[in-house]
Formats: sequence, structure tokens, C-alpha cells
Amino acid sequence: MESQNKASLPVMDGLERRVVASQSEGASTCDLLLRVLALVLTLAAAIVLGVDKQTKVVPIKIVDTLPAINLPVSAKWHYLSAFTYSVASNAIACSYAALSLVLAVSGKKGIMSIVIVLDLLMVAMLFSSNGAALAIGLMGYQGNSHVRWTKVCHVFGRFCNQVAVSISLSLLGSILFLLLVGITSLRLHKKSK
Amino acid sequence: MESQNKASLPVMDGLERRVVASQSEGASTCDLLLRVLALVLTLAAAIVLGVDKQTKVVPIKIVDTLPAINLPVSAKWHYLSAFTYSVASNAIACSYAALSLVLAVSGKKGIMSIVIVLDLLMVAMLFSSNGAALAIGLMGYQGNSHVRWTKVCHVFGRFCNQVAVSISLSLLGSILFLLLVGITSLRLHKKSK
Repeated sequence: MESQNKASLPVMDGLERRVVASQSEGASTCDLLLRVLALVLTLAAAIVLGVDKQTKVVPIKIVDTLPAINLPVSAKWHYLSAFTYSVASNAIACSYAALSLVLAVSGKKGIMSIVIVLDLLMVAMLFSSNGAALAIGLMGYQGNSHVRWTKVCHVFGRFCNQVAVSISLSLLGSILFLLLVGITSLRLHKKSK
Repeated sequence: MESQNKASLPVMDGLERRVVASQSEGASTCDLLLRVLALVLTLAAAIVLGVDKQTKVVPIKIVDTLPAINLPVSAKWHYLSAFTYSVASNAIACSYAALSLVLAVSGKKGIMSIVIVLDLLMVAMLFSSNGAALAIGLMGYQGNSHVRWTKVCHVFGRFCNQVAVSISLSLLGSILFLLLVGITSLRLHKKSK
């Protein structure tokens, strides 16, 4: 089939040749499209959370017997380790998506097994970071009376909304990696029958 | 190869036949062993967190101007939604591990594609619940001065240790599901070459 493709496309340039070669090896156009989308979504998720910062003037009681003093307080993404993990995970997944595109297009034999394993690791990493960021984000929105953790999102509304947008983008990115692993496995299963 | 196996094992009973049939279809002894281990670990993780409860007498200030009153306070797993999600995820993964064992041993053709997809969904679900439980657990251990969430594990030490054990068991269980997907994909990739 590969030789047929090559014969029918005599004017095909180097990149096209590599794409066709990679398709015969395992990576389809759908795969490549999913990788580009995953790259864009994880990059956007990392940037949206990575630039998240809000400063508000809030009344704070320093001594119980004295009235509250208005002080500027900042909310930054790196104050919470779950958000740091989310930014790092999305940055890693984004870099890997770019690398996997190069690997898939290069069409080198045997490279697909490494790509499958790394795709799977991205799924695990991204879903764990989504879980962590969502757990801390929800705590910020709702608080918890049992552990006396008060909600903070009524004060830092814009900051929390940006966190929510980043988590949504990251979730979509991780679903794309999940689809990549699922589609590849099912295609391999079909081919191995 | 299947017929050779059957011929060489004339006294093989029904279960053995099904195991051999399932091995030829895709599920190996290693797969079955990993599924049993994943079942045990996720069951243990769900139980350890599901029975987690600790009551301590702590001094609480009800009115600022009056001295603190000693009151019994309970820490229960379902007070925090991340822990509820963790128990539910591990219970679902445990039930699925049992079901997948039956499916794998049944050796029915075409069932492996469903098992691959469900294994992958378990990876996503378990890793997100691990991330959520770990983020809240760490907050309980360390607290966060920026959002004024105080640590609670210095009071509810046994409760937090039990949470840590449950998260560790759940993490091991999710790594086993990750291995299951990885091994199956790589085996299919090898077969499809």
C-alpha cells in the first residue's frame, strides 16, 4: 500500500513522504491532529494558570482587640503546590506533544512503542494534576467547615475563574491524550487479530 | 497453537481451557495476576479510607472574649469530597478488576477491546482521585498560610496516617492498571508488526 501511495504521488515532498511513512507505521492523520490539539490545550492551560495573579485590599485583624486593617493581599498560582504541579504537568505534556509530533512524523520503525508508553504516562500525570488542582480549586470555592478552611474565591473571584478555565483546558488536553492511547490500542488490537 | 495446547492437555478442565483460550486471545497469566493484585490493592485502599474516623477533644473558642471550651471533634473521611471521590473510585476500580478477571478468563473473542478501553478509564479515574486525595491530604499535613488553611494532622494524626496508607495503596493499584494498559498495548504493537 505504501508503494502504491508513493507511485501515485511522484511529486510528493520530504514531509509528505514522512507523513505517509508514519501513517503506515501506526500514526494516522487523526493521531497527528489530536497531538496538535493536545499541544495547544496543554500550552493554553499552563499559560492561563502560570500568569494567574490577583491583588485585593482586604480587612485583616492582626490583634483581636483592635479593629481590622485594610491591607493589599495577593493570590498567586505558585502559593498552592497543586497549582504548581498543574502548571508543570501541562508544560511537560505540551513539550512532549511537540516531541511526539516530530517522532510520529519521522516515521521511524519501532518508535511507536515508545510513543504509546509516553502517551500513557502523560494520561496518568495530567489526570493526577487535574484531580489535585480541582480538589484545591473546589476548596477555594466552597471551603470546608469541618477542617475550618474558609473559601477564598468570594474575594479572589478573577483568580479562581482563571484557575477554573485552566483546569477545563487541562482536562480537555488530558482527554485527548486518553483518546490517543485508546485509539492506538484499539487500532493495534484490530491489526493483531 | 491453541489446538496444540488442547491436544497436549486432554484432561484439562473447563476453567483451564478458558484460561488457555483467553491467553491466546490476549490475556496472559501476567495480566490475570496484575488484575488480582489491582483488585486487592484498590479494595484495601477503599476499606482503609472508608473506615477512617477519629474523635479528639480539642479546645474551641466559641466567643472571642471567653476562654476556649474543650469539645469532642470528629474527623471522618466523608467530610472531604476528595476522600469521598477516592473511596468511590477505588470501589469502582475494585469491582471492575473482578469483572475484568471474569471477562479475561471467559476468553470470548473481541472482549479484549472493551477491556482495554475500561482499563484505560480506570487509569484516568484512579490517577485523578489520587491527585485529589493527595492534594487535600498534604494540605491537612502542612496547611497554607497564604489562604489561611491551618494544618489539622497534628491533631488528627491517626486519621491522617490512615489517609496516607489508603493513598499509597490506591497509587500502587493505579500503577498496576497503568502497567496493564502498557503491557497490553506493547504486546498488541509487537503482534501487529
